[in-house]
Amino acid sequence: MQVNKTNSEISLKFDDKEFDWKRNESLLHRLENEGVVKLVFPLHDEVKRKHLLRNWALNWHDFTWQPIDEIYSYFGTKIATYFAFLGMYTRWLFFPAVSGLATQLIDFGSLQWLVLPSFFIFVISWAVFFLQFWKRKNSALLARWGINYSFSEYKASCNELDPLRHSLSVQGVEENKFDDAPAEKRRLQRNEWSGVLLRIRNNAIIVLGIICLQLPFELAYAHLYEKTKTEALRYVLTALYLVAIQYYTRIGGKVSVILIKYENNQGEESSADSLIYKVFGLYFMQSYIGLFYHASLYRNILTLRQVLIQRLVVSQVLENLIENSIPYLKYSYKKYRAVHKKKEEKESPSGKSVRLSTRVEKEYLKPSYTASIGEELEDGLFDDFLELALQFGMIMMFACAFPLIFCFAALNNATEIRADALKLLVMLKRPVPRAAATIGAWLNIFQFLIVMAICTNCLLLVCLYDEEGKWRIEPGLAAILIMEHALLLIKFGFSHFVPEEPAWVRANRVRYVAQAQTVCSKQLLRSITKLDSKWE
Amino acid sequence: MQVNKTNSEISLKFDDKEFDWKRNESLLHRLENEGVVKLVFPLHDEVKRKHLLRNWALNWHDFTWQPIDEIYSYFGTKIATYFAFLGMYTRWLFFPAVSGLATQLIDFGSLQWLVLPSFFIFVISWAVFFLQFWKRKNSALLARWGINYSFSEYKASCNELDPLRHSLSVQGVEENKFDDAPAEKRRLQRNEWSGVLLRIRNNAIIVLGIICLQLPFELAYAHLYEKTKTEALRYVLTALYLVAIQYYTRIGGKVSVILIKYENNQGEESSADSLIYKVFGLYFMQSYIGLFYHASLYRNILTLRQVLIQRLVVSQVLENLIENSIPYLKYSYKKYRAVHKKKEEKESPSGKSVRLSTRVEKEYLKPSYTASIGEELEDGLFDDFLELALQFGMIMMFACAFPLIFCFAALNNATEIRADALKLLVMLKRPVPRAAATIGAWLNIFQFLIVMAICTNCLLLVCLYDEEGKWRIEPGLAAILIMEHALLLIKFGFSHFVPEEPAWVRANRVRYVAQAQTVCSKQLLRSITKLDSKWE
Repeated sequence: MQVNKTNSEISLKFDDKEFDWKRNESLLHRLENEGVVKLVFPLHDEVKRKHLLRNWALNWHDFTWQPIDEIYSYFGTKIATYFAFLGMYTRWLFFPAVSGLATQLIDFGSLQWLVLPSFFIFVISWAVFFLQFWKRKNSALLARWGINYSFSEYKASCNELDPLRHSLSVQGVEENKFDDAPAEKRRLQRNEWSGVLLRIRNNAIIVLGIICLQLPFELAYAHLYEKTKTEALRYVLTALYLVAIQYYTRIGGKVSVILIKYENNQGEESSADSLIYKVFGLYFMQSYIGLFYHASLYRNILTLRQVLIQRLVVSQVLENLIENSIPYLKYSYKKYRAVHKKKEEKESPSGKSVRLSTRVEKEYLKPSYTASIGEELEDGLFDDFLELALQFGMIMMFACAFPLIFCFAALNNATEIRADALKLLVMLKRPVPRAAATIGAWLNIFQFLIVMAICTNCLLLVCLYDEEGKWRIEPGLAAILIMEHALLLIKFGFSHFVPEEPAWVRANRVRYVAQAQTVCSKQLLRSITKLDSKWE
Repeated sequence: MQVNKTNSEISLKFDDKEFDWKRNESLLHRLENEGVVKLVFPLHDEVKRKHLLRNWALNWHDFTWQPIDEIYSYFGTKIATYFAFLGMYTRWLFFPAVSGLATQLIDFGSLQWLVLPSFFIFVISWAVFFLQFWKRKNSALLARWGINYSFSEYKASCNELDPLRHSLSVQGVEENKFDDAPAEKRRLQRNEWSGVLLRIRNNAIIVLGIICLQLPFELAYAHLYEKTKTEALRYVLTALYLVAIQYYTRIGGKVSVILIKYENNQGEESSADSLIYKVFGLYFMQSYIGLFYHASLYRNILTLRQVLIQRLVVSQVLENLIENSIPYLKYSYKKYRAVHKKKEEKESPSGKSVRLSTRVEKEYLKPSYTASIGEELEDGLFDDFLELALQFGMIMMFACAFPLIFCFAALNNATEIRADALKLLVMLKRPVPRAAATIGAWLNIFQFLIVMAICTNCLLLVCLYDEEGKWRIEPGLAAILIMEHALLLIKFGFSHFVPEEPAWVRANRVRYVAQAQTVCSKQLLRSITKLDSKWE
């Protein structure tokens, strides 16, 4: 970044404006403040972009193959990881899609009653192994790209340590061991626990909000939808619902962002994870509660199937259409207005830079890759991952109700890869590359969805095989079963609230790494200066 | 270690023997081979030992406080970690002990039916938080002792890498990136998968052995014990059972050790973990199947309580007695024989070293701290941890049947700390210190026992509250519930079989760390030699 390093102010002139560039001030910031520079964003590299367009977005030969290394070098780690995950997910979907097709087409005769349970077991094992192999693939990718976990962890905790270091340097305290500074240790421990309490409070607020506000609303909609007989009224109701739920989700997202600001998350990545969990909670309720209502209301597998197909086709097709058309429409409208404005003004810049200016201008008009919720913390990957997670939840949680759903999902994902690639390469500004070693919070959400799928499919099987309603479950037994499931949730969920490593140990370790790095770099510097002094 | 560094052989003489000390040969090995040195073991440091004896083993003021740092410096990481865990476990046991006592003493009136379920939920949450806080304490201890995780990981994988390095140095191949050596990568991948398959096969053998051989045997014993009416016959039966089961466990342990030798575990620590899982399986069946049988046979909480008290008191008291008296008796017998022998021989060494020789001799006669199973892989900590884990399993899995059991466990553990300390300080040879960053496989076993406890206590509650047998569960429902639990087990268990990080990535990372270390040490060496050359 250009900084004024001279001893005097420099006066700059642009169009009609004139302003001073103060000492030690960043030129870019100054220009941005003055309104000369409107936005700083990375430009597309036309050669590479066209190459990727040909090899990736418009490569119709192999549906799941992607040039991951090229994507990595063009878009950075985070987007490359997303596409690697999407590709692997689509490839792995082949297995349940084929076996789902087989359960529908082949007649197993007297063993027909065994088909659904075995399909269920197969699907759960598939999901477990898929996520495990994804972790392996992820670490293999990181090794190939030369990214080190521990370094990213080190960077993440720098934020946390910065004030500490500052206070140390101000007080001029020199300390080698952390044990010598029990005050620091106590401070870190206090911070950690207040952070944990804050996070628990915020999560409780969100969970209560979802259960007390969203759940009744969703159930009311599902109930009213069933009660109204006229088609016209149903459409009106659905329109009202869609508008209302959109506002509700937006408000929920905003509340989450505000709450997260008060959490002392370590680094931006951790805040983004916190947002993901909270917003996924909202969407989880919104996407599946209607399905659960239908399933429990009818106890009829055929109606549930119909609803599932409707949901999957409508949500996926509509979402893909909206996702891809809205940016294009926005871009076209902006371009039209810009051209119109220019014509009116009749003042084009000097002839030399016309072509370049128009290319940059064109890219400036393109919408950027932003998240629909929490733009401050996340980029467009949030929406794409959310879509994937909701799809995964739907196909897993209702696997037994409709095994063919895996075929739909596989087809949808094959087009999704190309659509997302086109969106990034053609329709949007080139996003700023972001570092992320893993898919982070989404992996935990996928794991959670597998556990949910085990429970929901068991319920579905009970409904399916117990058509006569003979398997009456007594209230006492039901209470104990519910308690068991709640406790299993506690067992596997609560331990996340208490971090395994105390903050002061972590700080200690990070400090050790930092020290080792400074020692190394100092030695390097010394050897360089020695070389220099030899030549003098 | 003393090595002959001169250019000629040295001839040594001891008593009547005479032998040559070859060039570059270790003196100790030579002497051991010649039978002059019988055993190499660390001696007790009398000053420190007496200090520890006073402050730790015979400190009757505070039952759970222990001088962990002194234990660490005297016995090493692994034993200190064990005592830190035992102390924390005993302290934490206070909470469920008090609430267990409260459930028995206080009459809650009309809310009495809520007492057991809430005690159950409290106990499970307690256990979850206890293990989570133990992890924190463990990492805090490691930080205090200056032990770095990654380094121990590095050491563990050295074994794995050694042949690799060797082959590289022989071939004289210089490579910077692992990607350049796809053959090496393929070799590591092949090794990894064959290792996984071998481990699955071995575990399958052990599980089948337990289910097909041990389970019927245990059930037959429990059944016969119920059927026989005469007290005398029962004693005979129990005696037969105890002898048989001991042989069975020994054989199982030996089979496990043999199987483990064919697994390509990475380092000794990993083999020990593998042994722990396998042997714990044997003991798990042996300790609890009788209890399950009683619980399911009588469906009567009072009988189960009686059996629990019997088991806990008998096993803990007897075990403590045996554990402490057998080494003492062995020691006394050996000492008696040695003194007897000396009297007969009437040949004492030269007068000068009489006192020292007798002290060393005395310690030589003490039994060493060995495991009852798999001595090649584990030391006496195995038995101590096994005892703790079996106790934890018993109190957790039958918590609802007998809440007072926590008081017994707390009392037992308070004495256990002192007994174990006395054993290590007085009755045994000073064990060779072993490095271990965590309690390793035992932590996973404790986690597994919590999940088991959730399921067994739910079953117990069903038995307790369903005295009239009205909550009949239909076979279909039962099948689906069993399937659900099996799938949850798959979800949380199977992912352990597939390591998260491919072997070649790990090798790559370890190599990177090793490189960084050599660079650092080379620079250090260079700076030292520079200093040297200045002074020349």
